[in-house]
Amino acid sequence: MANVSVIGAGSWGLALARRLCKNGHDVTVWSHREEGVRELREQHENRSKLPGVILPEEIQYTSSLEQAIVGKDLCVLAVPSVYTRSTAEQMKPFVTDGQIIVSVAKGIEESTLMIQTDIISQVLPQVNAAVLSGPSHAEEVGRDIPTTVVAGAADRETAEYIQNLFMSESFRVYTSPDMLGIELGGALKNVIALAAGVADGLGCGDNTKAALITRGIAEMSRLGVAMGGHIETFNGLTGIGDLIVTCSSRHSRNRKAGYLIGQGRTMQEAMDEVQMVVEGVYSARAARILAVKYGIDMPIVNEVNKVLFENKTAREAMADLMLRDKKIEHPELPWKK
Amino acid sequence: MANVSVIGAGSWGLALARRLCKNGHDVTVWSHREEGVRELREQHENRSKLPGVILPEEIQYTSSLEQAIVGKDLCVLAVPSVYTRSTAEQMKPFVTDGQIIVSVAKGIEESTLMIQTDIISQVLPQVNAAVLSGPSHAEEVGRDIPTTVVAGAADRETAEYIQNLFMSESFRVYTSPDMLGIELGGALKNVIALAAGVADGLGCGDNTKAALITRGIAEMSRLGVAMGGHIETFNGLTGIGDLIVTCSSRHSRNRKAGYLIGQGRTMQEAMDEVQMVVEGVYSARAARILAVKYGIDMPIVNEVNKVLFENKTAREAMADLMLRDKKIEHPELPWKK
Repeated sequence: MANVSVIGAGSWGLALARRLCKNGHDVTVWSHREEGVRELREQHENRSKLPGVILPEEIQYTSSLEQAIVGKDLCVLAVPSVYTRSTAEQMKPFVTDGQIIVSVAKGIEESTLMIQTDIISQVLPQVNAAVLSGPSHAEEVGRDIPTTVVAGAADRETAEYIQNLFMSESFRVYTSPDMLGIELGGALKNVIALAAGVADGLGCGDNTKAALITRGIAEMSRLGVAMGGHIETFNGLTGIGDLIVTCSSRHSRNRKAGYLIGQGRTMQEAMDEVQMVVEGVYSARAARILAVKYGIDMPIVNEVNKVLFENKTAREAMADLMLRDKKIEHPELPWKK
Repeated sequence: MANVSVIGAGSWGLALARRLCKNGHDVTVWSHREEGVRELREQHENRSKLPGVILPEEIQYTSSLEQAIVGKDLCVLAVPSVYTRSTAEQMKPFVTDGQIIVSVAKGIEESTLMIQTDIISQVLPQVNAAVLSGPSHAEEVGRDIPTTVVAGAADRETAEYIQNLFMSESFRVYTSPDMLGIELGGALKNVIALAAGVADGLGCGDNTKAALITRGIAEMSRLGVAMGGHIETFNGLTGIGDLIVTCSSRHSRNRKAGYLIGQGRTMQEAMDEVQMVVEGVYSARAARILAVKYGIDMPIVNEVNKVLFENKTAREAMADLMLRDKKIEHPELPWKK
């Protein structure tokens, strides 16, 4: 049994802490809020972020990063992606050579266009940065609903170590060497989820959404492969799998913001109504910059950007997506005659 | 403008006939039932199969195959897949060399393991057999909800001819040379939809369904590529796209039958309750035979077969899928260290 910690006490961090504890490991959860620590100690539940999921009494809580890091076999970094860099800076005095840090946040840093594990490796070059991702609503993982995820690491031994720690009857963990592909899938899916929400808001149907998801993963893959990710990863759990969950869920903030825009709201009105950070808005901008940088055709990303930032109407954007040039689905395949 | 026909007056045939007519073509629809022809002539609607979709008055109806075929630039073959061979036999006296026959039915013939276009080419070797497929509920296409499909043919000219005939502002058509991949995706998806229904019936969540869809397309691709299809096709509209629509839809018979089985019914009880042919039951058997023949690991197809034909409970099957050996997601990718 291992001695592990989860840095961050949001819904996903707590669902994973519960899984690790139920698997028999010693688990410490770090929250930056002293009050949050007190509540979790007393209530064994985060009633605003993961209501109804009662956490095992064995889990320890702390607001000291030192306590959460020193002597741990593995630390799960579960703060929102915008806080990854600053949290890593604060972790610096306590981490040791080769310590495993598993990133579970999703996002591309807007100013640097870096993925989470690259930020961690840049700030903490001595650690062994890894990633855990996949189609995994915390609300379902917290209730032992069958879920599959992927553990990505630079070496197979680390990936299998993470797999062994997390795997259970309801939580199936695959391994992968493609950290970049895993992370790009997790970040870019939010842009496509915005588009899927727009389609729903316009009153489109299941056919339209399936088309957006399928063509969406195609353009995500084109960019991801150009950046060095593997096509297989985009066709796997952390790519298409996560995209399907995000585009179908009524709980996705990105899908919901898109829905409101599809119904005629401006981006600002939609964000005000959702009342939370809509990551896809930032990822949309990052994705367009990356598309230009790598010379990749990303029609859905482009239309999402035009709707978000250039006052194009959702209806015009949808019509333009449908009426582009007549295309071959996969131009690389040979004709028989 | 072209002179075309649709052989078969079910929901999909009529939705396509409407599309072709709205695109300005001369359209004749064939039904094997004289009464059906009369109803369509009078009501311009098939009230049982495609209620609410009013067909343009310009469409002609006939129960004579000769009238439906002779002199047509293109015939859409839209009978249920189990009638493809017998209908093709009846078409034999009327087809001409190089006449384009576009198959829009989905299924593998159980006794021969043949796909639809191969059956057509076997019975009618003189014709130019092609296929049109994708995520496309007829109810939505009949209402001009944005939809994307793929036209597959042996030569690019034929595929582009079909693309030009069908394409409109709400119906985007891609072309592809991979008829085998297109057809295998359309047939095998019904087996995975059964599994997705079982998961829903067991009370599983969005995470579980996304996992089944993702791992499902992975095993469909493994078989399809071994049989000569292209991996890109399985990752495209007729593969993952169609699979997403079928696994999400409340209207899918395959998903519904699986749902009932997940809730504890036997296969026979589920089929009696759905009251229609559940294609996935036959495709499941065909898929298992093909998996053995080509030496492909298809865990979801195997578990579906065990539940359908060997009295395994849905709950045991789900547990066995989750607890298989610890796996690498894509064993072909290299580790960095």
